[in-house]
Amino acid sequence: MANDKTAIQPTRNDDFPEWYQQVIAAADLAENSDVRGCMIIKPWGYGLWEQIQKNLDRMFKETGHENAYFPLFIPLSYLQKEAEHVAGFAKECAVVTHHRLEADANGNLVPKGELTEPLIVRPTSETIIGASFARWVQSYRDLPLLLNQWANVVRWEMRPRLFLRTAEFLWQEGHTAHETETEAVAETERMLKVYETFAKDYLALPVLVGEKSESERFPGAVRTLCIEAMVQDRKAVQAGTSHYLGQNFAKASEIKFVGRDNTQQYAYTTSWGVSTRLIGTLIMAHGDDNGVILPPRVASSQIVILPVIPKPEQRDEILASCEQLAAELRQQTWQGEPLRVKIDSRDKAGGSKTWDWIKKGVPLRVEIGPRDLAAGTVFTARRDKDAKDKQSFKREDFVVGAAKILEEIQQGLYDRALAFREANTRKIDTKEEFYAYFTPKNANKPEIHGGFALTHWCGDETVEEQIKNDLKVTIRCIPFGDTEAGTCPFTGKPSKQRVVFAKSY
Amino acid sequence: MANDKTAIQPTRNDDFPEWYQQVIAAADLAENSDVRGCMIIKPWGYGLWEQIQKNLDRMFKETGHENAYFPLFIPLSYLQKEAEHVAGFAKECAVVTHHRLEADANGNLVPKGELTEPLIVRPTSETIIGASFARWVQSYRDLPLLLNQWANVVRWEMRPRLFLRTAEFLWQEGHTAHETETEAVAETERMLKVYETFAKDYLALPVLVGEKSESERFPGAVRTLCIEAMVQDRKAVQAGTSHYLGQNFAKASEIKFVGRDNTQQYAYTTSWGVSTRLIGTLIMAHGDDNGVILPPRVASSQIVILPVIPKPEQRDEILASCEQLAAELRQQTWQGEPLRVKIDSRDKAGGSKTWDWIKKGVPLRVEIGPRDLAAGTVFTARRDKDAKDKQSFKREDFVVGAAKILEEIQQGLYDRALAFREANTRKIDTKEEFYAYFTPKNANKPEIHGGFALTHWCGDETVEEQIKNDLKVTIRCIPFGDTEAGTCPFTGKPSKQRVVFAKSY
Repeated sequence: MANDKTAIQPTRNDDFPEWYQQVIAAADLAENSDVRGCMIIKPWGYGLWEQIQKNLDRMFKETGHENAYFPLFIPLSYLQKEAEHVAGFAKECAVVTHHRLEADANGNLVPKGELTEPLIVRPTSETIIGASFARWVQSYRDLPLLLNQWANVVRWEMRPRLFLRTAEFLWQEGHTAHETETEAVAETERMLKVYETFAKDYLALPVLVGEKSESERFPGAVRTLCIEAMVQDRKAVQAGTSHYLGQNFAKASEIKFVGRDNTQQYAYTTSWGVSTRLIGTLIMAHGDDNGVILPPRVASSQIVILPVIPKPEQRDEILASCEQLAAELRQQTWQGEPLRVKIDSRDKAGGSKTWDWIKKGVPLRVEIGPRDLAAGTVFTARRDKDAKDKQSFKREDFVVGAAKILEEIQQGLYDRALAFREANTRKIDTKEEFYAYFTPKNANKPEIHGGFALTHWCGDETVEEQIKNDLKVTIRCIPFGDTEAGTCPFTGKPSKQRVVFAKSY
Repeated sequence: MANDKTAIQPTRNDDFPEWYQQVIAAADLAENSDVRGCMIIKPWGYGLWEQIQKNLDRMFKETGHENAYFPLFIPLSYLQKEAEHVAGFAKECAVVTHHRLEADANGNLVPKGELTEPLIVRPTSETIIGASFARWVQSYRDLPLLLNQWANVVRWEMRPRLFLRTAEFLWQEGHTAHETETEAVAETERMLKVYETFAKDYLALPVLVGEKSESERFPGAVRTLCIEAMVQDRKAVQAGTSHYLGQNFAKASEIKFVGRDNTQQYAYTTSWGVSTRLIGTLIMAHGDDNGVILPPRVASSQIVILPVIPKPEQRDEILASCEQLAAELRQQTWQGEPLRVKIDSRDKAGGSKTWDWIKKGVPLRVEIGPRDLAAGTVFTARRDKDAKDKQSFKREDFVVGAAKILEEIQQGLYDRALAFREANTRKIDTKEEFYAYFTPKNANKPEIHGGFALTHWCGDETVEEQIKNDLKVTIRCIPFGDTEAGTCPFTGKPSKQRVVFAKSY
């Protein structure tokens, strides 16, 4: 596309944050509402969430979890039970204080019926679910308790950004209680692994897995594990977290049980979640200057069929042929599921229709016109290739081969994202190089910087804080599996392993 | 069960409202939370909701609808746009007035960051979705707009009751906009039909379909259509509604388009919804004095296998046989889906385990012990029959016949509910008989009354109000298809058709 006009203006290179907004608008994925920070997820965006939900839900059930639903509202006193927890969320809580509206003297409706105790719209549900766990758990026989909830949560965001950071967002939150620390830690790690697998296999996202430093931990957690993705402006996105909560929330909520030794013990709990932020991540990771590129496994339509109808009298025959092709494709399976195929029969010029689907990122486009009909061929284009790069197939070959093409696209997106991350990750061993790496080369493009730095760190929080203040760079994770000891370039003290520093969303 | 002790105390006859609470507790479906009126839906209850969601969602998509998601919060000014609408909901609105918490001088957290405009937690989303529709609809080519949302809503309830009436509940709300009145009315009727079919085929609930009288209409609607079920205390439950909104909300939200004749026109809109109330309805319609009875098509487990293990050394062999049976059953399909089978291998006495599943209402129980293993048989019990009524099958016959048994149970529940409704519905033509029908015979059991009355009504609202005040009886619906004219027994005026009067939840 080097010399062509791109479908999205500005391009990623010109202005990545603005490109992101434009790409979402052009793909009709979501938009801002009049309610500050709250987004409207449009059908094409919600279709992605449905695929994410369906597949994660299956993975949760396969690992022994059941779904339940807990109240939207949390009494203020509940939230206060865990001191770090409430401190972490107090600044972003939507507070319900009244339960009806009444007309005042001027006829304007005003809040009435003040609640004796304010209710917080859940920012996360550890405390409200903990109160239930405390009732349900009496004996070690009641453990483990393995629940998940699909829900909306609210965290009042001052600088909202569609999908990545919104005041209300959709997510799942797993909450489990265990008899022993070992089991709870194993659960925390198991669910991180589920997230890693899901990110890789479905979202085509290579992610780093590791642990957060103390300053980046979930408020109230003993350990926070995370998956971190790199997106195309080389920033990190925390795409999912799994928390080992130790006995902190069990003590706060009195989740106690009679153990095998007949003594009263506090349970060990975990929580873990991913959200609609995953959609923002995949847009930023895979999109190009023509729009979104959807990984086929989560696209609500994997293939779109575009009838080409030069003359009105050809319409019926061509549409019938498209319907027939769609039916044949839907008989094919990929990854155990029927192919998801849509026909766009809107009365709209072909070129503009094609560009709609390029911008929407549908993985595979198929055109059928009178000549294809006569020749028994189809004309196809892959979203991961140049828009002009089209290929003709014998119709029957395409039908049986479509799943393989989707597989190639899925794998190709992953490979490309992995290569991008590797190209933009560097081991850095001096403070000077570190600061240079994260300092924009071009003052007009303050977003552009190095990427991920693998750097030794002595574990000192003041180092983290200094770097954050200087460069807006934080430790994204202490990656698993790295045991190469060394020296912290910031303090000269010994370091057990390299950690991942990056700018982040 | 005539002389036996029932698993649920009190029985339906003794105290229906209390029976309902006890049945829900015994089946572990849901419980009250500490947040007034908000329930916790436990896994066995949520599993029902998942089945309801999955199947309704497919039916919505088959009728051309797509899912989207709109904000939880509605600006107060939006809600006020439609006068009847806001009047209808003002008394039950949860109001968010602040967006953070801060410690006061005593260290107690108090709401801070007062919002310039209070936000209402959505009681329903016509106004917030209307604002989006207004942006999205420019031309008749943008219509129809056919959306659905799965969401939680809040209506502050003074007398909450699990599933039937809770402050927060889960539901779906369809919202559509059309070019013409004819199309919008057709949509309203189409979705009512979807609800009727779903209630019948999945919930085994016969429902009356018809229209609400003006006094029972959705606030702001032109017409409200409904499905009404009878439950076992002979009261009615409004199980789903479909509203034709005319241009009321289009005018309030400025949903305008350029029509085919090039003039600016207001769209015609509809909305329609069902909620977790469906779960309360099916519990009350099908349960017996031993607990819940789940219609197989919505049971998250249709068959439970109960290993009978007299001696510990037999455990492995019997469990392996159960696993094998479960695998064989899961290869079988019913209604296009694999059978849903669970093994209860908990270390618990057999009788108590059996009663757990009776109370939970699992449609079919299968016991396998050493003798069955030796004989190649299984011992089965249907939840719709007496608990002692068990039947032995050759194992292979049971595997291939299980789907047919589930079909019989599903049909049997429907037939029983229909017979019950018919037995408790009467054409009534005099005021005296009407009042006698709805007056409790026994002062100790004020709940017991006649059932549904099919009675002529002249259309006068004061008649409705008088009857409501006297008897707590309302018009549940003006049924479709009844065109027998007559005389209103309350006024002597002419009546176009009989309407359905009943007490209701």
